[in-house]
Amino acid sequence: MRIRMVQFNSVVGDVSGNLARMLDFIENARRDGVDIVTFPEMSLGGYPPEDLLFRPSFVTAMEDAAKALEKASQGLMVVAGYAIEHRGLLNVAAVMADGRTLIRVPKQHLPNYGVFDEARYFTPGEGGEVLTWGDWTLGISICEDLWYPDGPYLTQARRGANLLINISASPFSRGKSQMRQEMLATRADDAAAYLVWNNLVGAQDELVFDGQSTIFGPDGGVLTRARSFAEDVVTLDLERTPSAHRRWIDPRWRLGELEPDARPPVIVPMPVPEALTTLSDAGRIEALPDTVPSLYQALVMGLHDYVEKNGFGDVVVGLSGGIDSALTAVIAVDALGFKRVHGVFMPSVITSSESQRDAQQLAKNLGIDWREIPIKRIMAQFETELAPHFAKRPVDLTEENLQARIRGTLLMALSNKFGWLVLTTGNKSEMATGYSTLYGDMAGGFSVLKDVLKTEVFRLAHFVNERAGRDQIPANVLIKPPSAELRPDQKDEDSLPPYDILDQILKGYIENDMTPEQLVRMGLDSDMVRLAVRLVNRNEYKRRQAPVGIKVTPRAFGRDRRMPITGRFS
Amino acid sequence: MRIRMVQFNSVVGDVSGNLARMLDFIENARRDGVDIVTFPEMSLGGYPPEDLLFRPSFVTAMEDAAKALEKASQGLMVVAGYAIEHRGLLNVAAVMADGRTLIRVPKQHLPNYGVFDEARYFTPGEGGEVLTWGDWTLGISICEDLWYPDGPYLTQARRGANLLINISASPFSRGKSQMRQEMLATRADDAAAYLVWNNLVGAQDELVFDGQSTIFGPDGGVLTRARSFAEDVVTLDLERTPSAHRRWIDPRWRLGELEPDARPPVIVPMPVPEALTTLSDAGRIEALPDTVPSLYQALVMGLHDYVEKNGFGDVVVGLSGGIDSALTAVIAVDALGFKRVHGVFMPSVITSSESQRDAQQLAKNLGIDWREIPIKRIMAQFETELAPHFAKRPVDLTEENLQARIRGTLLMALSNKFGWLVLTTGNKSEMATGYSTLYGDMAGGFSVLKDVLKTEVFRLAHFVNERAGRDQIPANVLIKPPSAELRPDQKDEDSLPPYDILDQILKGYIENDMTPEQLVRMGLDSDMVRLAVRLVNRNEYKRRQAPVGIKVTPRAFGRDRRMPITGRFS
Repeated sequence: MRIRMVQFNSVVGDVSGNLARMLDFIENARRDGVDIVTFPEMSLGGYPPEDLLFRPSFVTAMEDAAKALEKASQGLMVVAGYAIEHRGLLNVAAVMADGRTLIRVPKQHLPNYGVFDEARYFTPGEGGEVLTWGDWTLGISICEDLWYPDGPYLTQARRGANLLINISASPFSRGKSQMRQEMLATRADDAAAYLVWNNLVGAQDELVFDGQSTIFGPDGGVLTRARSFAEDVVTLDLERTPSAHRRWIDPRWRLGELEPDARPPVIVPMPVPEALTTLSDAGRIEALPDTVPSLYQALVMGLHDYVEKNGFGDVVVGLSGGIDSALTAVIAVDALGFKRVHGVFMPSVITSSESQRDAQQLAKNLGIDWREIPIKRIMAQFETELAPHFAKRPVDLTEENLQARIRGTLLMALSNKFGWLVLTTGNKSEMATGYSTLYGDMAGGFSVLKDVLKTEVFRLAHFVNERAGRDQIPANVLIKPPSAELRPDQKDEDSLPPYDILDQILKGYIENDMTPEQLVRMGLDSDMVRLAVRLVNRNEYKRRQAPVGIKVTPRAFGRDRRMPITGRFS
Repeated sequence: MRIRMVQFNSVVGDVSGNLARMLDFIENARRDGVDIVTFPEMSLGGYPPEDLLFRPSFVTAMEDAAKALEKASQGLMVVAGYAIEHRGLLNVAAVMADGRTLIRVPKQHLPNYGVFDEARYFTPGEGGEVLTWGDWTLGISICEDLWYPDGPYLTQARRGANLLINISASPFSRGKSQMRQEMLATRADDAAAYLVWNNLVGAQDELVFDGQSTIFGPDGGVLTRARSFAEDVVTLDLERTPSAHRRWIDPRWRLGELEPDARPPVIVPMPVPEALTTLSDAGRIEALPDTVPSLYQALVMGLHDYVEKNGFGDVVVGLSGGIDSALTAVIAVDALGFKRVHGVFMPSVITSSESQRDAQQLAKNLGIDWREIPIKRIMAQFETELAPHFAKRPVDLTEENLQARIRGTLLMALSNKFGWLVLTTGNKSEMATGYSTLYGDMAGGFSVLKDVLKTEVFRLAHFVNERAGRDQIPANVLIKPPSAELRPDQKDEDSLPPYDILDQILKGYIENDMTPEQLVRMGLDSDMVRLAVRLVNRNEYKRRQAPVGIKVTPRAFGRDRRMPITGRFS
């Protein structure tokens, strides 16, 4: 029996576009003698559709598209995801064959944590139905359902399922791949069944789905795995024997209790497939990328899909000569090509010639458009107009922010005039501590490094240069101490703990909900902990107005972390 | 038996501050011979605490504070809300008496819609326990639990409860009060029991809790009701007879089935209260304010609490001479007093003398600080620096946005220099259609009119003048056609449908999830519908970066409406 996973990049809300692509994939599958073709979770509507699910017309559009898929399912079986109205809304995986829908399996476990709000939309499903087809008994489930050790897959296996299909939309975060693959292997082994895990690929606003769709054998071994961060189609010819044999010898199946058939399994009147020509991806096991390269690829895909799915043309980056804007520009070039990236250098009276040289060298290395717009005369004019109102108060943070806001306004003017998307360049350490200017360096449509700590920015920059085999990012950028250059001789470490310490505090406080006391007990300096925690709590209002950015850690700012602005608690 | 509801304004995260106030209220209650004193939902931690609930130290702080309440419960019964860790997190109402906790009742129905995410935090509770005390049998529940007709209150009543206590945090939205009071009256009548509904009052970020705590008799009649939008303490002496008598005569109780006692009710070893001196609010039934005044009060309280709970001093408003900034300034004066409100007029070459006159008259009427900062020279400097990059492209939206951003930057400079909070003045019609400039007029910390449609802005402005008995807002401001004054002779209606039509479209599309086709069938112009819907969908990215504002409708922008940016569907 020939099965094919289609790991494709669906677009949220674009039901007709997603349908058209799926029909193509089905047509190809039929031509290739595929018996079962699977798609990711919510493939017709894109994932996550969020409050679009409250629009009856959106759900109707998916239901209509499902009818078109049904029609197209001549001579093969199609497993696809969408939402249906049935005493509330259900997130379903439908199995279609020969022009009709055989079964719609609703998602049972609705993720309602982190970035997910599925309990806001869906009614949880029930059951553990299986579907019998010749020698094969299929158990279908959706994403989260497979994360519960006693989830529907187990009921299905105990009712005889030897082929489990899970359609999924499981997003990337740092270090998750390996754990996820181990969990999936365990499920296949526990069920003594083939497990076809068809994940989504592509980015949607804050989220990146990393693919890595995998077919596991009944012993948990990987038979084939699709690529990371790219569309892929994986085909495999399965034999029933391994699963059956495993159940003869595994004591959990010989001696354990089988689930009584609560209702008779659905019997599908389809011919058992004929002998096939070879067309198998058996043994094609795409490697799971390491931490730093996978982080880099996630950022590239996150930016690429945001720009392309929203129909933007070019992007513009304010280049300061620092490492954040350099890395952002490199990622933009990788995502969009150098011709679509514009670099703007906006020197003030404080800007050093070193910064200018580094920024210009970077632009030259990347081959991107380079512009220079000085801000000092605009700054002087602002100071003139404000002087009567400032009543001789000393220069302070106001003037630093003013410079940043003039730059933000200049970038937005270019954005308005030419339709370029402004990329902000701040990193997670800055977002956390508020070391950034609202409407200044925070002004822009997309924030590439929003969830990347400063120490990781350095790691990524080194990776970029190693990969290029040369200093794509000028060596000096990696060496010089970080500075906002908003007052003379300013260094980030004048206002913040050193980044290697700060980032440990932020990781513990933000990702692991540790208390300041616990952080101090870990050996971190107590003044630095107090300072960092105070800054994180005081700056929630800034983050609320930040552009969206790419989630790459277990807890990103944005809808992943929903802190009140009013009423602080450290 | 004497019962007292304490409708107090708790602060999210400020566990020790909330505790201190509650201890005072308890002390006063004891002195006044009160037998049962109740507080709103989550009174110790404030509501909604959002992701603070993921911090173990926050939950521990509430549990510790609850011990202090327990100790203080000598000689009376205290009903208070907080969260406890017990196989997951529970949102509980605890009943304490004589130094110990008699029962902790967990919330069963967790709101996970609109602005609420309780399924993100809490495990749903079970049961329908009652608590017997002399002649009284108490049934305790929390907020949402009472909204289900077959919720725990019914089980409790069938187990003999004659006094239902519901501690609540039910936020304001336009037109909700009346419906909520009717529902509550029905519950009391259905249960044939007294119903003590203790609601929260005060504002928290986007939400305003409007109070109106009410005690209903067993026939659903209102015995006493607390004030709207203000703290209040309501005391009532109850006799058991009405409830018992009603059950003798109501056929639903004579002939209906009583709930078997699943477990023996808790018997509290407290003396039945002695005869009391009169101290009753019986008959004090505070009126429910009408739509426009209640909307106005919600905005005043929303702004007041945001400023005070976050420790801001003064606020600053950019005055344009238009109605939005005028109304915002009036609300600010009502919320904070005229001495804490600063008005800034920032004329360009386009600004009319009419605008100047209207803005200045308003400031004079309110007695607020008035400043004038011209933007034309700054604008000219921006144009000079950008000219080489604009390559003789025609003047367009870019130059309009530039003016708005110069103004935003000036207000932020004043904010930085003096610590003033910038109030943005945009309304919901503008937020919906993107008729606003990011980092320009959208720059600021708090958005008073964010959820108020333009037609409602006019209604509120008329209300303000009627209430004052004079033109507090200059009459001309209410008459002249709205204009952004960013290009010569500009009128809002050049770019947008007339507001009376636009607002109907927005209400249907945003609040009621209607399709464009349905709106046209309602008789709305199809070109206008198409334009408005396209604008709403295209501008999600702007709203994502807008400051928080006060929710006053059934569906506000912000966390109430979670639309994807990428992937549009109309």
